[in-house]
Amino acid sequence: MTVTAPGTAGATATSTTDLDAARAALRSRLLDDGVLVDLGSPGLYGRTGVFERVYSAVDAAEVRIHEDLDAEVLRFPPVEPLTAFERTDYIASFPDLAASISGFTGDDRTHRALLAARERGERWESFLQPADLMLTPAVCHPVYGLLSGTLPVGGRTFDILGDSFRREPSLDPMRLQAFHMHEFVHVGTPESAKQHRDGRIPGMRALLESFGLEIDVVPANDPFFGRVGQMLARNQVEQALKFELVTPVYGQDRPWTAIGSANLHEDHFGTSFAIRTADGGVAHSACVAFGLERVTIALFAAHGTDPDAWPRSVRAALAL
Amino acid sequence: MTVTAPGTAGATATSTTDLDAARAALRSRLLDDGVLVDLGSPGLYGRTGVFERVYSAVDAAEVRIHEDLDAEVLRFPPVEPLTAFERTDYIASFPDLAASISGFTGDDRTHRALLAARERGERWESFLQPADLMLTPAVCHPVYGLLSGTLPVGGRTFDILGDSFRREPSLDPMRLQAFHMHEFVHVGTPESAKQHRDGRIPGMRALLESFGLEIDVVPANDPFFGRVGQMLARNQVEQALKFELVTPVYGQDRPWTAIGSANLHEDHFGTSFAIRTADGGVAHSACVAFGLERVTIALFAAHGTDPDAWPRSVRAALAL
Repeated sequence: MTVTAPGTAGATATSTTDLDAARAALRSRLLDDGVLVDLGSPGLYGRTGVFERVYSAVDAAEVRIHEDLDAEVLRFPPVEPLTAFERTDYIASFPDLAASISGFTGDDRTHRALLAARERGERWESFLQPADLMLTPAVCHPVYGLLSGTLPVGGRTFDILGDSFRREPSLDPMRLQAFHMHEFVHVGTPESAKQHRDGRIPGMRALLESFGLEIDVVPANDPFFGRVGQMLARNQVEQALKFELVTPVYGQDRPWTAIGSANLHEDHFGTSFAIRTADGGVAHSACVAFGLERVTIALFAAHGTDPDAWPRSVRAALAL
Repeated sequence: MTVTAPGTAGATATSTTDLDAARAALRSRLLDDGVLVDLGSPGLYGRTGVFERVYSAVDAAEVRIHEDLDAEVLRFPPVEPLTAFERTDYIASFPDLAASISGFTGDDRTHRALLAARERGERWESFLQPADLMLTPAVCHPVYGLLSGTLPVGGRTFDILGDSFRREPSLDPMRLQAFHMHEFVHVGTPESAKQHRDGRIPGMRALLESFGLEIDVVPANDPFFGRVGQMLARNQVEQALKFELVTPVYGQDRPWTAIGSANLHEDHFGTSFAIRTADGGVAHSACVAFGLERVTIALFAAHGTDPDAWPRSVRAALAL
């Protein structure tokens, strides 16, 4: 089925099949040229040495442009306690992306029943119990629970690199289920939070442009779930709280893809996690981030799968 | 309750309470001195800048001693498809450590029912469905599915760093639920696999000793589940397939802790994943690995929480 996108027509029309074909072509090129390895599940890949080389260079370059923040380094596991997850209210806005973890708590007899069911070709997950853990959907989530109470004057700023999981299987190599975000998070006053979001965008844009990528900065349109979600999505665009750095991975006339973001949460986490500023107000927060796999794959899409053949200026910007 | 361990007596007796106290003391020191951050769930921690500094140094040193392998770099996400997990037979041997992932696949109406249950303070995981994904319990697992078929002459050798999850909540900071293994895996003939396991041990031991750690190499005793598992555990020890590099984190007279391992799988994965050698035999495999968080925490336990105050020789060995 070919669906013409609203507002486009004639030779530049973006059709779903065109876009799907472009995504499939990039995916094939990345797999055929040994950049990614197919793990047999949409949106899950093994990453090879050439991928890691570029990925590490992207990450190091991102760290360099935020060095002036003197951010506190924090790393978290790919899972977070359910209690922390609950306070983010993620299950209300993005239930379809969430992922819960179950474990086996039975005895020898229950284990034999599980294995017997498995032997019969039946599913055995019903023998497991919820483990009070979720896969972390947003890399900065675990930090807010550590900040309940009163912040120092000037707030706090964090360097957080970690795993993000979102349950959205896709054959688009720009949309992974498991990926890494390197986030620089500030928690402070309404003014310092807004300044953090707005102040970092020009440097992030310039860095991505130095990688030879065409970049635009646009209001984000997150995939809030369901009918209430449509309203939340409209609010998000109208209030212009979150911006995305987008690049034309699949061509100028097709939807551009977000590879970075700058997000003002206002008092969302400050309220949920009871974080106050030194002057007694509810803390505001903001984070800026690159999606590391997205930037990396955008580079392979733009310049080809052999980094040694990339333009000299791009290799210099990446210190490759 | 004080339980005296078999074979010990008198002043050097190891009691459970003694050991628990030693574990609690190390955990407190790591938290109080800002090496780890408590996330409110046993065995899940945030890792700070000082932790990451040592962790990165340990990882880099491990890579240096295996450089001669010229291993192919592969990185995997923290989750793996259920189909791949099934072929490892992990659920038969270690069901209590396994972790399954569920997602929400319902519509707007089901989502409202989920949120209503949540509002009433009820658990809402029953609204989710198994997602055909497992958390990866062993970092090398995903590689075998990529090798089905015939290997080149000489086999293949991989450098695999990744996330491992095992559902064993513990207050012992040496036993995390989510951690990283850096594994060097060889798949080839019975002889080359055994040579890989045995040949790497001396270098791994020497490296850990250069870090100022006392090391012994002992047969592993994995926690196979249940009554059948007791038999498997005895077999493992008798056949001496897997060795562990252990260090006395909690004192000479208390159980030493594994911080590295060298494991010969024989034809386990070769058979399960239909991998054959160039001469037509069933492939054998072996992997050697450091548990990166375990080595890192063993260093903090041995030398204190300020790396700048560590012995000069230790800092030199770590290039710190």
